[in-house]
Amino acid sequence: MKALYFDGTLNLRETEMPKRAPGEALLAVKLAGICGTDRQILKGYSGFRGIPGHEFVGEVVECDDAGWIGKRVVGEINVVCGSCEWCRRGLGRHCKRRTVMGIVNRPGAFAEFVALPAANLHEVPHEVPDEAAVFTEPLAAACEILEQIPLPPGAQVAVLGDGRLGLLAAQVLRHAQAQVTVIGHHDDRLGLARIWGMSIAHAGTQPIPAKSFTIVVEATGSPQGLDQALRIVEPRGTVVMKSTFYEPARFDTAKLVVDEVTLIGSRCGNFPMALDLLRSKHVKVQELVSRIFTLEAGLEAFHYLDQTPCLKVLLASGA
Amino acid sequence: MKALYFDGTLNLRETEMPKRAPGEALLAVKLAGICGTDRQILKGYSGFRGIPGHEFVGEVVECDDAGWIGKRVVGEINVVCGSCEWCRRGLGRHCKRRTVMGIVNRPGAFAEFVALPAANLHEVPHEVPDEAAVFTEPLAAACEILEQIPLPPGAQVAVLGDGRLGLLAAQVLRHAQAQVTVIGHHDDRLGLARIWGMSIAHAGTQPIPAKSFTIVVEATGSPQGLDQALRIVEPRGTVVMKSTFYEPARFDTAKLVVDEVTLIGSRCGNFPMALDLLRSKHVKVQELVSRIFTLEAGLEAFHYLDQTPCLKVLLASGA
Repeated sequence: MKALYFDGTLNLRETEMPKRAPGEALLAVKLAGICGTDRQILKGYSGFRGIPGHEFVGEVVECDDAGWIGKRVVGEINVVCGSCEWCRRGLGRHCKRRTVMGIVNRPGAFAEFVALPAANLHEVPHEVPDEAAVFTEPLAAACEILEQIPLPPGAQVAVLGDGRLGLLAAQVLRHAQAQVTVIGHHDDRLGLARIWGMSIAHAGTQPIPAKSFTIVVEATGSPQGLDQALRIVEPRGTVVMKSTFYEPARFDTAKLVVDEVTLIGSRCGNFPMALDLLRSKHVKVQELVSRIFTLEAGLEAFHYLDQTPCLKVLLASGA
Repeated sequence: MKALYFDGTLNLRETEMPKRAPGEALLAVKLAGICGTDRQILKGYSGFRGIPGHEFVGEVVECDDAGWIGKRVVGEINVVCGSCEWCRRGLGRHCKRRTVMGIVNRPGAFAEFVALPAANLHEVPHEVPDEAAVFTEPLAAACEILEQIPLPPGAQVAVLGDGRLGLLAAQVLRHAQAQVTVIGHHDDRLGLARIWGMSIAHAGTQPIPAKSFTIVVEATGSPQGLDQALRIVEPRGTVVMKSTFYEPARFDTAKLVVDEVTLIGSRCGNFPMALDLLRSKHVKVQELVSRIFTLEAGLEAFHYLDQTPCLKVLLASGA
């Protein structure tokens, strides 16, 4: 099958079909999304070698449970042991023996086919088209915020960063009755946020008052984002950190300590909640699709992302 | 009066007596403690100029309320406006207009006399000698941890750093029924922790397993401490950050995000709780006194701290 493969550089190659381990399904990938983490992997993040890609929608072509065959699915990306302390606590996403699709020791979805345990799959409701379903994983990551922190109705929340994850998080928080301000650099993306009923601020030209938000979601994808978030969060406020990057971040610890700020790391989230938001259309995602490339044009897609300020770029595998 | 004064360098000088503002008491300082923050101030932290010092015990010599006169007192270091949003919320420690004794725009206690609002004072119980009472402020800062995070009985807690604040925090957490491990570099201090019933680990020679503590208190006073704390905290665990320093800290944000760790800044705390722990002797502090200098020998005391691995150094003003 065709796949994008990272072995220090990214290349398109013909590889063997995935081998299905016991309990795993074989999926034909329909669409896959390129995430900031994928681009960090190409810089060295997580030391990954293999087929990247962890945002996808596909169709089950082989499975021990015949009921799955032919179903359109999305899949949770952490493959867990099921027996360690973390799995027993119901926090399999933190399983010490886990592999992570396209990120840690497991082939990803920038390929015609991918294998994943049937237990990781969620059927996509028929109302949700492929171009929306492919956002399930990042939207679930945005939903995770609601499971980690209390969000009083009307809470003043800033989302720092108007990229893909920022715009998803902003919508999830808005739907949960927060007063959301999106702070970014891109007029077109801020325009979307405004249409969706949020306040907006252009980071380059509009000064953001210090200590003015109860909650700040850091989704800039940049090591500088944390210092900005700490500047605008109020004393005893919370900064939710969503960005991961290869470089370490520097920040002013005195601000964290003196203002007694809580900084909370936030990663993967709840797929059913995300699918429900997609089905109900309470979160808009198709507006975030900038361009769809074929899998064969995958290198061009990464090059496009490097050159073009844009939101989500998808790869259509057409297997 | 005599005072230590920092104007880019620290010097002993003859200064004017403090002017007592309305509502303020004039205190004769008996003993003052040198804190890590004081040493950071000499490196530029907070941009402070004036008389440093915020840990003290003294005697009231002037006050509008005559009932205070002659009382032996300690004092809360944040002087607040009483009317802003933060003061109204009962979080005056975060008042935007606050001054902070010896740290922000207010003369401190490395002097024969100091002025402080009567509202900031707490009488010292007669069972608590001066050499213990002078620890009220740092002990209150240690108690603050209990007000910020839930501490299930038997929780596995690591205190990273065997300095003054680390040994105070360890005792407070132990008294609150946590299973405490003190991790440090100094055999004598770790020996105290062992006597007090804590587990100990020598950071240089005993490998600490990764992801092995539910809560880690970062009290190293070093910008490197945060990365160490993030290494040993378990997924979904909490790092309480106590150290403040002039330099920014660098840390691996991916660890925070992937393991969904909560990092919480923690500063000043509850004086009555601290005085109660001193009165009941549930927390030992006099063992932490390394040496007492006179105020006149204050420069020598700072020099001694720079040269000597030691715990708490006190200044006796003898006013």
